Amino acid sequence: MPETLPENSVGLVQTHIHHCVTPLILECGKTLAEYDIAYETYGSFNAQKNNAVLICHALSGDQHAAGYNSMDDKKPGWWESAIGPGKPIDTNHFFVVCINNLGGCKGSTGPNTVNPETGKYWGPDFPIVTVKDWVKSQQRFMQALDIPHWQAVIGGSLGGMQVLQWSIDYPELLNYAIVIAAAPKLSAQNIAFNEVARQSIMADPDFYNGHYLAQNTSPRRGLMLARMLGHITYLSDAAMRHKFGRELREGKLNFGFDVDFQVESYLRYQGRSFVDRFDANTYLLMTKTLDYFDPASNYQDNLSLALAPAKAKFLVISFSSDWRFAPERSREIVKALLQAKKQVSYIEIEANQGHDAFLIPIPHYLNVFDAYMKNIRHAAFTSDDEVEKCN
Amino acid sequence: MPETLPENSVGLVQTHIHHCVTPLILECGKTLAEYDIAYETYGSFNAQKNNAVLICHALSGDQHAAGYNSMDDKKPGWWESAIGPGKPIDTNHFFVVCINNLGGCKGSTGPNTVNPETGKYWGPDFPIVTVKDWVKSQQRFMQALDIPHWQAVIGGSLGGMQVLQWSIDYPELLNYAIVIAAAPKLSAQNIAFNEVARQSIMADPDFYNGHYLAQNTSPRRGLMLARMLGHITYLSDAAMRHKFGRELREGKLNFGFDVDFQVESYLRYQGRSFVDRFDANTYLLMTKTLDYFDPASNYQDNLSLALAPAKAKFLVISFSSDWRFAPERSREIVKALLQAKKQVSYIEIEANQGHDAFLIPIPHYLNVFDAYMKNIRHAAFTSDDEVEKCN
Repeated sequence: MPETLPENSVGLVQTHIHHCVTPLILECGKTLAEYDIAYETYGSFNAQKNNAVLICHALSGDQHAAGYNSMDDKKPGWWESAIGPGKPIDTNHFFVVCINNLGGCKGSTGPNTVNPETGKYWGPDFPIVTVKDWVKSQQRFMQALDIPHWQAVIGGSLGGMQVLQWSIDYPELLNYAIVIAAAPKLSAQNIAFNEVARQSIMADPDFYNGHYLAQNTSPRRGLMLARMLGHITYLSDAAMRHKFGRELREGKLNFGFDVDFQVESYLRYQGRSFVDRFDANTYLLMTKTLDYFDPASNYQDNLSLALAPAKAKFLVISFSSDWRFAPERSREIVKALLQAKKQVSYIEIEANQGHDAFLIPIPHYLNVFDAYMKNIRHAAFTSDDEVEKCN
Repeated sequence: MPETLPENSVGLVQTHIHHCVTPLILECGKTLAEYDIAYETYGSFNAQKNNAVLICHALSGDQHAAGYNSMDDKKPGWWESAIGPGKPIDTNHFFVVCINNLGGCKGSTGPNTVNPETGKYWGPDFPIVTVKDWVKSQQRFMQALDIPHWQAVIGGSLGGMQVLQWSIDYPELLNYAIVIAAAPKLSAQNIAFNEVARQSIMADPDFYNGHYLAQNTSPRRGLMLARMLGHITYLSDAAMRHKFGRELREGKLNFGFDVDFQVESYLRYQGRSFVDRFDANTYLLMTKTLDYFDPASNYQDNLSLALAPAKAKFLVISFSSDWRFAPERSREIVKALLQAKKQVSYIEIEANQGHDAFLIPIPHYLNVFDAYMKNIRHAAFTSDDEVEKCN
């Protein structure tokens, strides 16, 4: 618990709930008659209301992207490194919005909330949502909150996929699209890892076909396994070598199945702490959302055709040691954008932290990100002085 | 079921059991008072008894490396592509021996056999064996069967690690050491994957702390998950893309948690078929054996010092798309051998099948392998005519 919050943090923030009563028709054909959207905002609107930025979260993220929800919080929001006063997404200048995606487990309607039609937990009956559905719900939310336009939509990993979808589906509503550590679709290997994660959750006898909340339990072992596996794919081989090597936790081999190596201890800890904060059905959903994302699929697999409607300027960032969504995958996006004659900047950051790098305060990464965001401000607002607080 | 067996197969073969009553002291400090070794042999001794070859198996392998155990067998042994008349390990010339390693589950003493001291299944009480223990047991076996010397010791993956250990521990007993798709030790990432596999088995409620056989059950779900995960690391990303891409099994998304993509179907099938033929405790053991292998650890991490005693000539083979034990890992072995002034040939085979490539009949690989084995024969036997059958 920090006694005082860091000066470059947005500080104490709180989650709000927006209740939406306009039915949302999903890609799967089902309709959500009404639903909640949990969100946080940081900074405030300028007079022109042209400084709003949308942050899209990744698989295990949520609306709490920056700051602290209470003075007891041990950790700030998941993207504290990038969002705050003086940081790349500078809350002295931008009005920042982050939404818990539908199907999430942190206040938005999802499997761990009650279906008003049945009075029971949605559980496994919550429909499978797609990135397109999310973007639609985010656009609805934007209208409801009277946000006329996003200066930028920004996201890493699954968040970056939402950014791409935004640029395609609502080209008029965003000026800049920042796509970090993403891919235009999952590879067979990506899907394979997701499938093992899903099977590990669904094989847990405490899963009860997804109705575990009704049984007052949860598939903790399965979700822990899924998270452990995820962590391997988030870290690079080099990062793991650097972080753990073959270091033994007790300086010697135990000749048993308890922890021998530090890396085992780390994974078990990561797995265990995740199950306390995340819902297994949401994890299942989010992995399917990832698997299904493939905007080119309706365009004969031609991503450049899919991106044709986009009007935003793009920044694409990848990390050299990311093997979940390797730089090659980002370059597929860049190539398609160039073929579609879009304005795009691309940078590959040298970093050995793997996919996780997008969340880590790597100086070169944050410097590039910061410079780009400053350029957005300078292009969008005649001068910084004009950014007045009106909200 | 083949109605007739292929001509270039060793044909019908059977597993033999050698019962050893000389106690074996293991690295963990425990002693196996007596134990069985299951083995198969193909081909026969020549007059000079200098044509014996030892095949060392990998994690999920066993003594049945080639041929068919019955006319009903749907598949031949695991290395049918490399062992047989006219094949690289040519049974017209070599006397080939393959042993199920201790701790295995195909007839050698292991967790699924009965501990004579207790009259119960060994289960989780079977001691953790190391590569060094295996090699020691293989050398004992060799003495017992009156095999004076190996012309070559050959293995892929974990098998290649045994080959390295043979060259270090019994330098006088082998002429050639063929190390395929191996590594001098596991990386943190390799260990991490093994740890997730182990946790998935141990988290299965049917595991009963390893005593599942006493309960007439087995942790099928956990072992299936472990195998699914293993398969991802055996195939390359490119192989998966080539094999499955994002192909949908039913031509459309199902918006549910059944199989959508072919790759999911493949993994589930691989996982399910594995649990019918493999013991979960053996899987746990073998992964620990892999984790523990690190011959350089007693030599200040200097592999070249560890390899100093070796007298064999080495052939090291790696595969370009193997990311489990990448070519870099093989080059570590080659570099250490060169530093130790050993004779070593190295080839990296272009292949997109990943780690699995070592089991696959890739023409260039088999040609190189075959040429090397022919050279061994020509160096060891004055002429092919001298290879007489005496056994």
